[in-house]
Amino acid sequence: MSEPIKEITALSELGEFALIERLTANIPHYHKSTIKGVGDDAAVLQYGDKCQVITTDMLMEGIHFNLVYTPMKHLGYKAAIANFSDVYAMNALPRQLVVSIAVSQKFSVQALDEFYGGLRHACEEYEVDLVGGDTSSSMTGFAISITVIGEADKEKVTYRSTAKETDLICVTGDLGAAYLGLQVLERENKIFFDSKGGQPRLDNYNYVLQRQLKPEARKEIIDFFAKNDVVPTSMIDISDGLSSELLHICKQSDAGCSLYQQRIPIHEQTKEVASEFGMEPLICALNGGEDYELLFTVPLDKYTIIASRSDIAIIGHITHKSEGCNFVTELGQQIPLVAQGWSAYNE
Amino acid sequence: MSEPIKEITALSELGEFALIERLTANIPHYHKSTIKGVGDDAAVLQYGDKCQVITTDMLMEGIHFNLVYTPMKHLGYKAAIANFSDVYAMNALPRQLVVSIAVSQKFSVQALDEFYGGLRHACEEYEVDLVGGDTSSSMTGFAISITVIGEADKEKVTYRSTAKETDLICVTGDLGAAYLGLQVLERENKIFFDSKGGQPRLDNYNYVLQRQLKPEARKEIIDFFAKNDVVPTSMIDISDGLSSELLHICKQSDAGCSLYQQRIPIHEQTKEVASEFGMEPLICALNGGEDYELLFTVPLDKYTIIASRSDIAIIGHITHKSEGCNFVTELGQQIPLVAQGWSAYNE
Repeated sequence: MSEPIKEITALSELGEFALIERLTANIPHYHKSTIKGVGDDAAVLQYGDKCQVITTDMLMEGIHFNLVYTPMKHLGYKAAIANFSDVYAMNALPRQLVVSIAVSQKFSVQALDEFYGGLRHACEEYEVDLVGGDTSSSMTGFAISITVIGEADKEKVTYRSTAKETDLICVTGDLGAAYLGLQVLERENKIFFDSKGGQPRLDNYNYVLQRQLKPEARKEIIDFFAKNDVVPTSMIDISDGLSSELLHICKQSDAGCSLYQQRIPIHEQTKEVASEFGMEPLICALNGGEDYELLFTVPLDKYTIIASRSDIAIIGHITHKSEGCNFVTELGQQIPLVAQGWSAYNE
Repeated sequence: MSEPIKEITALSELGEFALIERLTANIPHYHKSTIKGVGDDAAVLQYGDKCQVITTDMLMEGIHFNLVYTPMKHLGYKAAIANFSDVYAMNALPRQLVVSIAVSQKFSVQALDEFYGGLRHACEEYEVDLVGGDTSSSMTGFAISITVIGEADKEKVTYRSTAKETDLICVTGDLGAAYLGLQVLERENKIFFDSKGGQPRLDNYNYVLQRQLKPEARKEIIDFFAKNDVVPTSMIDISDGLSSELLHICKQSDAGCSLYQQRIPIHEQTKEVASEFGMEPLICALNGGEDYELLFTVPLDKYTIIASRSDIAIIGHITHKSEGCNFVTELGQQIPLVAQGWSAYNE
């Protein structure tokens, strides 16, 4: 029963992305219905004329959420949204969802009603069919796994790996707010415990809190692409921070990029709250996670149609690989872009 | 942020199946690609001419497995098999798999290599494409979520709800062994701890241990159905015990059943080990979980073809609902069939 002792490597030594590469190297595919496996926001299948995309996400209490300040209904909503966002990032529309939950005895039936209420509300808002799942128990805390199937025309499915030199780099909405919303919640939570029950003061933080607690996925952007015959050359959703996601696109597209500081969209309240916390808003925008905005590239000739939308910012362009991935400051300094996004295995 | 205090119901009061019914009542479907939602071994979708089935399962350390006596490689294999079994129970063939894992820092990269090794081995054996997943961290222990997509001709998809009066009730393989394998492992584990390191004695338990640690899914039965133009009238896989699964078929088919004690297939070693533990082998066969055999019904005119296989037992027949669900003992006594299978929320 016992295994011989072998070399042991800590997960934190390797990091999440290297671990995934290691675990999923050289996986064979047996079926022609498998178009694309591991390595994008979603896998791509083809049953029938259209393509299906499939994406999955696991959320663990204490790691991905804190139930002290996250209402169960919001948690259900957000868990669904995070997966819809991955589907949109493939230029596809979410169709079906399956959900598994594991809960300890400390949870009540009413708490699960709330969670499912949020999940079902997201499914209604985004017209997704909740078709199945698994409900089980856990020794400690709450675990959630959601898998979503989406659908797209085969020629419109958008990968991370197909950005081309001179393409415009675009991002929807604004960045960094969800991260600052989390900082506010954690601060007020600490004050609450330290003061043994002092009420949280949250009135001036509506925008950043909403971005953290009730994010939305960018369905309207996919509709806009369809109506205007825009097919992005690459796309990814921003769950781990702009820097990290843009580096994924560049690495997988074998390309470089120039990203312009002055173009990065940051909400006024994000700036105010960052300053209150003694943080640089730009750092929050580059590295803060959970924005669920779309980062995509389009050919230069789409400039006019993209620029027509106030909720899309053109933040840079794709360059030749030899130029590297660069961040250009307001003063024109060029510095290498590095990812400091959320990592599952940081100690 | 705080919610008003409402009525609180403990999960154990409601039970797993009632909880699922409550959470998933009246879920709307928006897409014609959704053929069947919650309520079977898998949901059924239709993209293209064929149908796809989708099933998902979550496994939590300390609830569904004990890493003291479960090698990581076996765990990966079994986690995949449990989902393939659900796909076969729809009379479909598994095609794609996505897997999410959450692990605490106590796990090494090599432990995850082993887990993925087992998972990949199962995918090779059953020709399933591992197409994606999520790798994250957990505060405590190991959590696994697997989702599998399968494919079937639309007219061959087999539900739980379509058994007809006079149909033969059939089961593959033999029952109760996986449950007794678990008893052996738990006993030896206890001895190991009590004796501070005494070696386990497992030589005489090969069959029941293999059924617990390395179960297989019944692919060859689905191939047999296809080759012989048999489409079962209903089917389910046995993960929670024969009684529980047969009652699901009867309830959803609005029918009754007669199940014959003398027909229930039990392996010789299962009988021996049960007797060693002072258990009734029949009770293990009726209520022991994790056998991953298929329970199905066929019309009477399929008797000859089904009876030709030594690995399928005909164990009873479907009756009118008014006759109830009955267990007929070797002495001809008729007693009501009750489910005592595994429940997620027993205290």
